[in-house]
Amino acid sequence: MSTNKPVHAPQSRFPVVDGCLHVGGLPLTRLAQRVGSTPFYAYDRKVLSDRVRQVRDCLPDGVRLHYSMKANPMPALVQHMAALVDGIDVASGGELKVALDAGMAPACISFAGPGKSIAELAQAVAAGVQVHAESERELRLLARIGADLGIAPLVVIRVNPDFELKGSGMRMGGGAKQFGIDAEEMPRVLALARELGLDVLGFHIFSGSQSLKAEAIIEAQTQTFALAQQLAQHLSQPLRVLNIGGGFGIPYFPGETPLDLAPVAAHLRQSLPRVRQALPQAEVVIELGRYLVGEAGVYVTRVVDRKVSRGQVFLITDGGLHHHLAASGNFGQVIRKNYPVAIANRLDSSDTEVASVVGPLCTPLDLLADKMELPRADVDDLVAVFQSGAYGLSASPGGFLSHPDALEVLV
Amino acid sequence: MSTNKPVHAPQSRFPVVDGCLHVGGLPLTRLAQRVGSTPFYAYDRKVLSDRVRQVRDCLPDGVRLHYSMKANPMPALVQHMAALVDGIDVASGGELKVALDAGMAPACISFAGPGKSIAELAQAVAAGVQVHAESERELRLLARIGADLGIAPLVVIRVNPDFELKGSGMRMGGGAKQFGIDAEEMPRVLALARELGLDVLGFHIFSGSQSLKAEAIIEAQTQTFALAQQLAQHLSQPLRVLNIGGGFGIPYFPGETPLDLAPVAAHLRQSLPRVRQALPQAEVVIELGRYLVGEAGVYVTRVVDRKVSRGQVFLITDGGLHHHLAASGNFGQVIRKNYPVAIANRLDSSDTEVASVVGPLCTPLDLLADKMELPRADVDDLVAVFQSGAYGLSASPGGFLSHPDALEVLV
Repeated sequence: MSTNKPVHAPQSRFPVVDGCLHVGGLPLTRLAQRVGSTPFYAYDRKVLSDRVRQVRDCLPDGVRLHYSMKANPMPALVQHMAALVDGIDVASGGELKVALDAGMAPACISFAGPGKSIAELAQAVAAGVQVHAESERELRLLARIGADLGIAPLVVIRVNPDFELKGSGMRMGGGAKQFGIDAEEMPRVLALARELGLDVLGFHIFSGSQSLKAEAIIEAQTQTFALAQQLAQHLSQPLRVLNIGGGFGIPYFPGETPLDLAPVAAHLRQSLPRVRQALPQAEVVIELGRYLVGEAGVYVTRVVDRKVSRGQVFLITDGGLHHHLAASGNFGQVIRKNYPVAIANRLDSSDTEVASVVGPLCTPLDLLADKMELPRADVDDLVAVFQSGAYGLSASPGGFLSHPDALEVLV
Repeated sequence: MSTNKPVHAPQSRFPVVDGCLHVGGLPLTRLAQRVGSTPFYAYDRKVLSDRVRQVRDCLPDGVRLHYSMKANPMPALVQHMAALVDGIDVASGGELKVALDAGMAPACISFAGPGKSIAELAQAVAAGVQVHAESERELRLLARIGADLGIAPLVVIRVNPDFELKGSGMRMGGGAKQFGIDAEEMPRVLALARELGLDVLGFHIFSGSQSLKAEAIIEAQTQTFALAQQLAQHLSQPLRVLNIGGGFGIPYFPGETPLDLAPVAAHLRQSLPRVRQALPQAEVVIELGRYLVGEAGVYVTRVVDRKVSRGQVFLITDGGLHHHLAASGNFGQVIRKNYPVAIANRLDSSDTEVASVVGPLCTPLDLLADKMELPRADVDDLVAVFQSGAYGLSASPGGFLSHPDALEVLV
């Protein structure tokens, strides 16, 4: 690869032995035999556990770490994560079921998401999980459902802050948003909650996601703590829950570098005593999805044809956009860029070429790697797409063109 | 709506009675009750049949019309289409099963797609359908499978032409492509097929899709006929099948206008006698997917919350990106634009406002309409997304965030 061009951050989580990528302690060629078919996603338990440990080692004591399961809802993975984290954030009734099945204590589950149905709100209240109310309507419904069921709902209000996480991949706060209740409306809304007889435990203030800049995260956290203290004055009870969101990103594309967690952790350690002083009962929660699981997964697909068209090499695989929409560049990307992709069983090959990796779909959108320098590959070789542990299979149109489903394994 | 701004092409396929959209002869409010839940896709049989009749009325006699079922694989719809068209194009073993179940004669089914698996090729040969070979490897496999099964495969070769359909939404030909075999390689490849003992029936020459420009389609068809005649010289038998692809688009976005079929049909009528003279045994096939079904479907979702955030109105619905990725702007669009969207039960309302329609997912990508002028809507109103009969549900990440599936009805 040319030294001038931006390159992908190195992939160091998975060992390479005799030129073959190892996932879950197995050569990928053998894992493919064990799975029995390609394509599949493989998530590595050890990489997951290591990442959680790394984050916990950084975070100051008492900050609770939640897993945001929308990043990857595979039940076995959620169960693995449930044993490592302090809580799970769910985004639907369907996710709520998986989190409960995984054995997470209901009070450590929080349910956020605009447009919750009445049925979902009732499920959440019956389960005894925290409901992160996103509108006045949800507050009214929660009061009614609580009265009907004779259960006091655990209510947290999601706040749309008046700031955003700068440079984030997804802005979830600031400006006009469908998420949460505008910060400036909160005094009125908290008065309404009081009228409705709801005990509001605290706030969920989430300003953005997929940021690789420590300074931006620090700035958002500072603003989040300030906003929480200001809003807490309007609570009738002390603030008990403060979910400060996540926003920690992982590098996907050439030129991106990993987030430096140290300054974020240092700043949190510095800020927390003052937060504790102002909000002594506050349980501070960080919720992370992609950051915990994104780097622990690879998507594995097999070359089924090799073609040269007008001088360009195409490796046609049995997997593609229908299993991994994000890697095809069709999930929130404006300009398509390549995910880190490798020929998993030829990592020590010096015989390289520029090739495009495409899937079996009859559409030019089905592109996993566009003109990448890769070891020369042929039919039956395995292509690995890294950084695929989050927003992979569940965020892909699996039924498109009625090809076989991809399997998922936790190894 | 301002008269200066580009507007959506008018939606005239579905009648409006007393302010309510009718689909399949039913008010959408009643259809929603019949379906029993929202969100759902409704496809209108009459609109489907009318569109096929309209295309057939335009096309010269003897041009065969195929339905490309990747546009919409709902089994009931495929069965409806199977009775109206001359053949079905499938893109996977899964689609092949649906087409056969729909009762289409095997010889009228064609199977195209790069990266067909050995199992799929064997299924296709066993079924007796036309296989559109996309590479030398597929030709070799077909010869071997044919010998193994004792069945002569029906082979058509997909050609990557040296031209493209200009201004098309998706370029499927021209330049280096994963689709088909480069036109300039065909003499060599046809010699190989002969050596392999394969009887090549003809060619599939597909240069692009989703074009709204009659001139561009006419130019591509002219080039396609010329290329076919040139390549036919290298066949050992007369050319019997000539699939000239489709490429007919439908208008989605403000400022787009429907394709004018008349000049395309006139040009075909004019060209065909000469094609017939040069290729007297050629069965000319046009394959259309989106153009036949795209305008016959609406996606229907219900408003579950109404929110004003910093002056902007958000209608939060029970459906979104997970059911209709294309309408969210995340399926091959570089710049997101609004699909035609309406408040289906308030079409005669003059009380309008600018509102955004969003789904229930915790992501800003979940956007069905961005700041559109719409009748003022509230909880329980129905939102209809038009032009949703193709590349809708099957092209969407249904499992994302584990919300309920959307139903599909043919009415």
